Amino acid sequence: MNETAELTNSYRDGAAVRAACRTGALGGQTSGLAQGFQQGNLAILPAAYADDFLRYCMRNPKPAPLLSVSEIGNPSMPQLGPNIDIRRDLPRYRIFRNGEPAESVTDLDAIWREDFVSFVIGCSFSFETALLRDNIPVRHIEAGRNVAMYVTNIETERAGPFGGPMVVSMRSFSPRDAISAVILSSRFPGSHGAPVHIGDPEAIGIVDINKPDFGDAPAIHPGDITLFWACGVTPQSAIRRARPEIAVTHEPGHMLVTDLRVKST
Amino acid sequence: MNETAELTNSYRDGAAVRAACRTGALGGQTSGLAQGFQQGNLAILPAAYADDFLRYCMRNPKPAPLLSVSEIGNPSMPQLGPNIDIRRDLPRYRIFRNGEPAESVTDLDAIWREDFVSFVIGCSFSFETALLRDNIPVRHIEAGRNVAMYVTNIETERAGPFGGPMVVSMRSFSPRDAISAVILSSRFPGSHGAPVHIGDPEAIGIVDINKPDFGDAPAIHPGDITLFWACGVTPQSAIRRARPEIAVTHEPGHMLVTDLRVKST
Repeated sequence: MNETAELTNSYRDGAAVRAACRTGALGGQTSGLAQGFQQGNLAILPAAYADDFLRYCMRNPKPAPLLSVSEIGNPSMPQLGPNIDIRRDLPRYRIFRNGEPAESVTDLDAIWREDFVSFVIGCSFSFETALLRDNIPVRHIEAGRNVAMYVTNIETERAGPFGGPMVVSMRSFSPRDAISAVILSSRFPGSHGAPVHIGDPEAIGIVDINKPDFGDAPAIHPGDITLFWACGVTPQSAIRRARPEIAVTHEPGHMLVTDLRVKST
Repeated sequence: MNETAELTNSYRDGAAVRAACRTGALGGQTSGLAQGFQQGNLAILPAAYADDFLRYCMRNPKPAPLLSVSEIGNPSMPQLGPNIDIRRDLPRYRIFRNGEPAESVTDLDAIWREDFVSFVIGCSFSFETALLRDNIPVRHIEAGRNVAMYVTNIETERAGPFGGPMVVSMRSFSPRDAISAVILSSRFPGSHGAPVHIGDPEAIGIVDINKPDFGDAPAIHPGDITLFWACGVTPQSAIRRARPEIAVTHEPGHMLVTDLRVKST
């Protein structure tokens, strides 16, 4: 906690986090940094894939709440911050080749292409911050684990080569807190909004709640009810299935921190 | 349905319903009448009990969302409609003596006292109308039954002689509709607001979901999740436990129809 407090103090806003990424001073995860500022998942695709991917996000706003899309070949994202250089302002990037993870890098100078289009998609940090602010315990944070994520039997709406099953993150709560979490999350549509499922995991194709497909095993308390939110891994998974010759995402947990204030609607 | 449609047409607003009650033209239930206008539970108590009951409502806003309280001995309720006479504007009243139901009457002329204080408390009709408008099926309405109600192990906050367990109404939904119902009901705080419990009935002391304490057996569909809302029977039950020498409520289903428009917050 001391380390987190210190980090929080040194990075008071999105611009400070991005500046530290650009100089190389910051290469770690962004969770807890610049609190109150919206963080985003990054996806970069060649222009030949961009139109279909944009349609995919529009058709699947819960797993892929699109915060901004760039011009072709332009590394700035003025809607998210006046001076963003998407090639250098994240702590770490993951490069996919033909749908497979190939490299992990701290900037995109060497691989940038004039046909790249960047997409920034909202993530669940904003909503989790709101839960904690309302004194609603978030089990995986309390347990120091990553959130548990599962591939479901809910198919996303296809667009061109993009499609596949929805991936969800699970958070469990006491019944009373579950009601508050549903209401609260519904006010953050840019952060995946309200849950897509509540209760029985098998109803959405999850066989063993204790064996997530991604992240850590959940810490479910007795009497808890399980809530499932559409997860930003879904569009990443759709990109992998589309197998473009090259694509870039953030390294998990190493997000773009924007100048947008976290706001409920 | 034809009869309902006809009734709905003949009573377009709260004033029309109340006028028909006053002349005796209407003596039946108010469900479905004057849609879009807020209906309320009535409770009338001698002034000696009124302060404690007012505190009871304020301390328990989910079971007893107070819409208005009258002056002592004054049968008007100007906040709910300019010309309301609470002694004559409901279709039917129930008189309690020493906590026990004693008579069922169509006006209060014979028993009105100069120390009577009237309380009007929001009811769930507004919220159910909003669900139906959003095409969310309400099982008990589809099945033509009354909503199932249960005495729980949740204690209300006491005030003087008023207290006792919370009574809840149960509505079950598909998981996806359950999420919408939580969000929607939270916007109607005058209609009991968000649920107080979700999921396992035993966690709030309900032994057999198919055997409600009041109302009809529920029509739960396979895969449904159960949601529980604080119910207006709670303050009525608190009045019965307090055993005042006299008290008046509406006859179940025979509500006061106000001039207030149903509005979400």
